[in-house]
Amino acid sequence: MFLGALKLEFQGRDIVSIEDFSREEINHILDVSSSMEPLSSKGSDMLKGKILATLFFEPSTRTRLSFEAAMLKLGGSNIGLDSEIASIKKGENLADTVRTVENYADAIALRHILEGAAKLAAEFSKVPVINAGTGAEEHPTQAFIDLYTIRKEKGKIDGLKIALMGDLRYGRTVHSLAYALALFNIELYLVSPESLRMRKDVLQTIKTKIPVTEDANLETIMPQIDVLYVTRIQRERFPDAAEYAKLKGAYKIDLKTLHNAKKDMIILHPLPRIDEIEAEVDNTPQARYFQQVGNGVVVRMALLALVLGAVK
Amino acid sequence: MFLGALKLEFQGRDIVSIEDFSREEINHILDVSSSMEPLSSKGSDMLKGKILATLFFEPSTRTRLSFEAAMLKLGGSNIGLDSEIASIKKGENLADTVRTVENYADAIALRHILEGAAKLAAEFSKVPVINAGTGAEEHPTQAFIDLYTIRKEKGKIDGLKIALMGDLRYGRTVHSLAYALALFNIELYLVSPESLRMRKDVLQTIKTKIPVTEDANLETIMPQIDVLYVTRIQRERFPDAAEYAKLKGAYKIDLKTLHNAKKDMIILHPLPRIDEIEAEVDNTPQARYFQQVGNGVVVRMALLALVLGAVK
Amino acid sequence: MFLGALKLEFQGRDIVSIEDFSREEINHILDVSSSMEPLSSKGSDMLKGKILATLFFEPSTRTRLSFEAAMLKLGGSNIGLDSEIASIKKGENLADTVRTVENYADAIALRHILEGAAKLAAEFSKVPVINAGTGAEEHPTQAFIDLYTIRKEKGKIDGLKIALMGDLRYGRTVHSLAYALALFNIELYLVSPESLRMRKDVLQTIKTKIPVTEDANLETIMPQIDVLYVTRIQRERFPDAAEYAKLKGAYKIDLKTLHNAKKDMIILHPLPRIDEIEAEVDNTPQARYFQQVGNGVVVRMALLALVLGAVK
Repeated sequence: MFLGALKLEFQGRDIVSIEDFSREEINHILDVSSSMEPLSSKGSDMLKGKILATLFFEPSTRTRLSFEAAMLKLGGSNIGLDSEIASIKKGENLADTVRTVENYADAIALRHILEGAAKLAAEFSKVPVINAGTGAEEHPTQAFIDLYTIRKEKGKIDGLKIALMGDLRYGRTVHSLAYALALFNIELYLVSPESLRMRKDVLQTIKTKIPVTEDANLETIMPQIDVLYVTRIQRERFPDAAEYAKLKGAYKIDLKTLHNAKKDMIILHPLPRIDEIEAEVDNTPQARYFQQVGNGVVVRMALLALVLGAVK
Repeated sequence: MFLGALKLEFQGRDIVSIEDFSREEINHILDVSSSMEPLSSKGSDMLKGKILATLFFEPSTRTRLSFEAAMLKLGGSNIGLDSEIASIKKGENLADTVRTVENYADAIALRHILEGAAKLAAEFSKVPVINAGTGAEEHPTQAFIDLYTIRKEKGKIDGLKIALMGDLRYGRTVHSLAYALALFNIELYLVSPESLRMRKDVLQTIKTKIPVTEDANLETIMPQIDVLYVTRIQRERFPDAAEYAKLKGAYKIDLKTLHNAKKDMIILHPLPRIDEIEAEVDNTPQARYFQQVGNGVVVRMALLALVLGAVK
Repeated sequence: MFLGALKLEFQGRDIVSIEDFSREEINHILDVSSSMEPLSSKGSDMLKGKILATLFFEPSTRTRLSFEAAMLKLGGSNIGLDSEIASIKKGENLADTVRTVENYADAIALRHILEGAAKLAAEFSKVPVINAGTGAEEHPTQAFIDLYTIRKEKGKIDGLKIALMGDLRYGRTVHSLAYALALFNIELYLVSPESLRMRKDVLQTIKTKIPVTEDANLETIMPQIDVLYVTRIQRERFPDAAEYAKLKGAYKIDLKTLHNAKKDMIILHPLPRIDEIEAEVDNTPQARYFQQVGNGVVVRMALLALVLGAVK
């Protein structure tokens, strides 16, 4: 029965949505990411001669630099366009842009303000398209990074109690992550203001697979949870400044919030943070968000090597 | 009689205007482009250690990415500045910028809003300057790409009937292309609104060399032509929105327009297109504009390799 | 007595302020720069696999391109963000940006509008931080370039008579340069408008070490000086346009100004210039400001190779 092994085919594949990946495929991506750790420091020629085009129609320095570093560490190189320049080019549709850029590059990493942009790009592109964040829905590479960080820090994913906190409605990283976590045997806790609760469609899907505690109280669950995943609450989501200030304050992590946390609990955050995690937390043993950034490079190395056929 | 061969000297040469090149030299550039096809997919170290500076004082993602991809595929690398940044630097003159950047790079690809900018840059620069589009007049590398695509698709250039359509007055690609085509034994048809007719100076030059049919009717010539070169008609050229809408509609290609076209006619476009070619045309056997984009890379590989002395 | 040799340790070191360097260390950096001259033209793999992140929160095309060229000539590569993009990312503090980017790169070149930014970044960064210009105070790599150019052109630094001219108050290059020159046995002449005199704190420090003539008259000192270092006088420094026009005219170099200069005197300028050196001066034997730009690459190659441990 080689069925599982036979299904794992990544070369030429698009990375559009986390929902396209099985638990087995995710585990394989995490294994390959792990094998990239030594190459991340000593370098490799695995992707020599390969070019990644980073098409960022919405700015995201962090994600772009992470993809570029991943490519360079595997011996490849980068070309790209940024939102400022792209915005000038108004008029051309995404399909034409993709059919142009596929002539210049071996893969495309696409960031776009519109949901569905990566899917559309993948349909038109001859080369693999990697979704680097689109709309409010999908950010699959960040989800792989989150999973990798959890597995690396905790040694496993199954059996953990994981809390997602902050803006669960518009924050795109939590949607991709929630879908992925639902493939593992975990217990999920959702901590957010009423108006920023997890989207109904996401919630419905994951509730059929794992136990989910909605509207959890952070102080109450703190002693039990193994992973606390914090996200930003953005000013723009609130018409009322006073309302924003009040809510923001209630979803902030500081040393006091952590007083009853497990010693080996870990705090993650997709970054950038504004002030939802106080600087005093940075030096606690629980803080892992900067390590998470570093993991971003090896996970993207793995994804690039896989879709470009450099590893199986 | 080694006369021809002796004249072909490209190392260190600037690519400022298509008018600086003889028919023999153009053919040589197309031959070298052809030899770049295999290197485009498998890569090369031909320009290892060489640096191209892309100075784009006017945005053009497509042309910049194409040059960068060409450089990378030959093992070289890129540095560059974009219009946004450059605009901040106001105050410094182009001559000083060039005398600075020549210290950082082995060649310069320059895009500028002003005619004559590439010529000026070439006069001051110790390293070869390649005109990547200046003013409304010159875009020589695009002309080489157009010629290469015609020769590759039709097997030859001599003997063809070629129509240029759209904005023949301000569109810079058609001027460079018209000059170049006049060196071959072709018949030229010009199809454009009254107000966007081919510039007088260009017309005068080419009419002394090849038969030119001005103000041709597209439907009438469609059954005879071998190449249809379409360009954008830009809104900004018209004070009157209604006038623009009317004209634009008359210079649009769709399946109906093509009903009496030759089966082996080819449609080219320098891209980006807005809506002058309908999406339904993309899957016709005539559509070649996305292949044309791909040819941009091999032609620019050839030009870079030639001026940097990596090939003869 | 290996004392001196033992002190010279550059691997992993930050380049924040010129004041952190001894005369011996500066001389060593200039020697290593000299050894980079052949590598600058023929290339090297000394930094293969290494990545420099250029974080430019204030635009400076020249400095950024110079760092990037240096990295490429040593076989390394670059990732970076520009001020336009960075400005969007408002909200994240510099410490977080640094702790993110250190995961992507082996060294960081930082340009920032605020004094102290490089120092702060160096405190948080695991990888070496190179100050690429911060606030009005420090631009240490430019100072190394200036010293290198003087030593290369004049064969030595000790014993020279050097004039600094223009905006000595706000121009950041002259502060770093003045500190560095004070470590050598030189005579310094300061030529500037009353309102743009050298900052008091800088002046006090250097006057304890070398003879300084304040408020020198350019015509009087011209026959004696070996080096004339010219800087821009920026419009923004003056509330009054008439005052600006008058002063600017008085601190301009043309052929007439140079009539009584030594034949082997050299003119330097950190560039970009506006009009404080007339174009007619460019072809005099004294003009060395474009060579100075070229020296920027070898000096930055040396600094990168040193802090990344590729040379001792």
